[in-house]
Amino acid sequence: MTRIVLKFGGAAIASTDRIQEFAKKAVAEKNRGLDVVVVTSAMGRTAKELAKMARDLSDDASKRELDVLFSTSSQVASALCAIALQEAGYDAVSLTGWQAGLLTDAKHRNARIGDVAVNRIEKHLAQGQIVVVAGEQGIDGAQNITTLGKGGAETTAVAIAAAINAERVDIFTNVEGVYTADPNHILGAKKLKEISYDEMLELSNLGSHILHPRAVELAKKFQIPVIIRSCELDVTGTLLKEEVEVEKNLIVRGVAFESDIIRLTVGYDAYSDASLADMFTVLAENRINVDIIVQAIIDGLKPSVSFTILKEEFAQALHVLENSKLSLGFSFADFEVGLAKVSIIGSGMASNPGVAARMFDRLRREGIPVKMVSTSEIKVSVVVPQDDMIQAANALHAEFNLAEALQE
Amino acid sequence: MTRIVLKFGGAAIASTDRIQEFAKKAVAEKNRGLDVVVVTSAMGRTAKELAKMARDLSDDASKRELDVLFSTSSQVASALCAIALQEAGYDAVSLTGWQAGLLTDAKHRNARIGDVAVNRIEKHLAQGQIVVVAGEQGIDGAQNITTLGKGGAETTAVAIAAAINAERVDIFTNVEGVYTADPNHILGAKKLKEISYDEMLELSNLGSHILHPRAVELAKKFQIPVIIRSCELDVTGTLLKEEVEVEKNLIVRGVAFESDIIRLTVGYDAYSDASLADMFTVLAENRINVDIIVQAIIDGLKPSVSFTILKEEFAQALHVLENSKLSLGFSFADFEVGLAKVSIIGSGMASNPGVAARMFDRLRREGIPVKMVSTSEIKVSVVVPQDDMIQAANALHAEFNLAEALQE
Repeated sequence: MTRIVLKFGGAAIASTDRIQEFAKKAVAEKNRGLDVVVVTSAMGRTAKELAKMARDLSDDASKRELDVLFSTSSQVASALCAIALQEAGYDAVSLTGWQAGLLTDAKHRNARIGDVAVNRIEKHLAQGQIVVVAGEQGIDGAQNITTLGKGGAETTAVAIAAAINAERVDIFTNVEGVYTADPNHILGAKKLKEISYDEMLELSNLGSHILHPRAVELAKKFQIPVIIRSCELDVTGTLLKEEVEVEKNLIVRGVAFESDIIRLTVGYDAYSDASLADMFTVLAENRINVDIIVQAIIDGLKPSVSFTILKEEFAQALHVLENSKLSLGFSFADFEVGLAKVSIIGSGMASNPGVAARMFDRLRREGIPVKMVSTSEIKVSVVVPQDDMIQAANALHAEFNLAEALQE
Repeated sequence: MTRIVLKFGGAAIASTDRIQEFAKKAVAEKNRGLDVVVVTSAMGRTAKELAKMARDLSDDASKRELDVLFSTSSQVASALCAIALQEAGYDAVSLTGWQAGLLTDAKHRNARIGDVAVNRIEKHLAQGQIVVVAGEQGIDGAQNITTLGKGGAETTAVAIAAAINAERVDIFTNVEGVYTADPNHILGAKKLKEISYDEMLELSNLGSHILHPRAVELAKKFQIPVIIRSCELDVTGTLLKEEVEVEKNLIVRGVAFESDIIRLTVGYDAYSDASLADMFTVLAENRINVDIIVQAIIDGLKPSVSFTILKEEFAQALHVLENSKLSLGFSFADFEVGLAKVSIIGSGMASNPGVAARMFDRLRREGIPVKMVSTSEIKVSVVVPQDDMIQAANALHAEFNLAEALQE
């Protein structure tokens, strides 16, 4: 039988009223004759209360125990969803992560799914039941409860879809789909009909919080089509798949932006081959996420490395650099705050030279200085002053005719 | 190594402040060189919120899903307790019911423990860890989460103590121990130093809510000493064990009372041997708890059966009787509300005839009418008007010199 996995979270299950609404959507799929698996995320309010209680007891609670604590939140959501489905007259059963066979590594708070042992899900589906899985959680090899961290419920949904050969995953969110840019800030932003995994991956990594990169990667790996759709409105969402038709020859298909970026620059008197590796090894060991990296080794100038980090990791990064100054062998460190990153994304870029040049030219005409540049096959990111971020994004959205993106 | 099981619940874990207090008590036992297992019950506030959400969704939520829902509450408590112990500098690990090996039958909301597979608890104890078990929950043969119903956490504590050969179970409650009567109502009620399992069983069944009968039965079966003690004050509690010294020749060792009792009387024109069995089979099938039963078959009078039920089950009981009138073959049903049950309990009674007579005589002198009587080897219960309940209890407490009960 054809199978579908539906993921509900955040706003979609924020209250019992919303859970009843969600139940209707799951029931509609069941009535179409599909096998239905529902994956729920944690309920936001509950998670906040749990976090407060843990903080009251300890500033440094063990991650194992935090997983025991926080996993209850999606367990509550899954039971409530099952009750709502039963109340609607359908046979439903909730499963925790360990019951659903979500086997993970032992990295508490941020575990990775290793395998899905689907026998129990299969058994319930064979009985005609709607299976509701508490997302974001699993069990490690030593039978400890783990949670998956950010994007865990979406990742759970895609992993289960792959394991049971589902036709599709529907992600119900508080947005109607994937837009060419954030419609709250960019005039004329349009919802895309389709987007490729690779484009979505760039968007996910570039400050667009619709779908976590882990979920997109997994969907790409197993070639599972995913639809991003509204949990409130019954409108067509955006289909995520391998290859998309280039709509109206749009080379660039999205503009993303992210504020609160800080640039750190480290300069060397004497620079060795190991300098770069050493620097980023130390930062990684201290769990500081580095984004754009620019290395400048120019004759006559002292060598330097610049990289961007998020505002919330700034203090920690400075602390690490200070402590490691001797071992890393750099002579000075400098930083610039108040920056933002603006990116253009599109699979068509790879075969269209000159896209970056057109981007830089437009920004120059807008009078917006470009501080750093980073490129991939399908995106170009620039670091600009934060005050210019929205203007830059709007200008690029217009430059690449994104307001003309076709939806339906 | 000597082992102890500590049960904390209700008031003892109502807030993070209280959880820190509890941690001190567990740590004190650990510092005495004992292996320590802690059993937590659900956090009251959380359980209420969960119940409300379930009710919002359904008046008749499935018990399986309610178990998934409510089991999160003691899981939260266990994780918070483990965090508090870790913050105090001790190695601690929380376990859910299934992780702790609590194997139960499949009767959701009211499951019975079948076995405790202790290998995981043993492993953690061997590593010197304080093991915190989420009480009130287990797992059935089909790997579904179950909860144990009323008294579940105490029962869990005693079951684990039996399985790991613990020396003792300490139940931390909001009372200081077992009293000769409820000190809130009875002048001169004294805390008992010791009480036998059988006496405690009668007390538990007679409206004294200190310890659930299931836990007492299990403790008696495995001969596990249990101490009932205060979670707030560091004072000696009451030791529950098989044989107790009769203190100062006290034949009666406790007076218990329970209000909101309703008497139902059913009369027959023609009474057969099957009438009694049929009546109580139908009531049991409808889950109506019947307490005292009095059958009167007197020549010249129509036969009748009277029995007591709790106020909250009255409407349901009437409904059942009405629906079954034909099949049960009775001719009339009558009821009396506003009744209470007062009981005297003591192991010494069996070998002391005349205790019941002395009780009735005192009540007669107090002018309190006795509506029904029920006796066992170690207790006598009478049903009296609710308005006379406290007076009756005080009179009996005085009659049997309970104010002279020795504590320490």
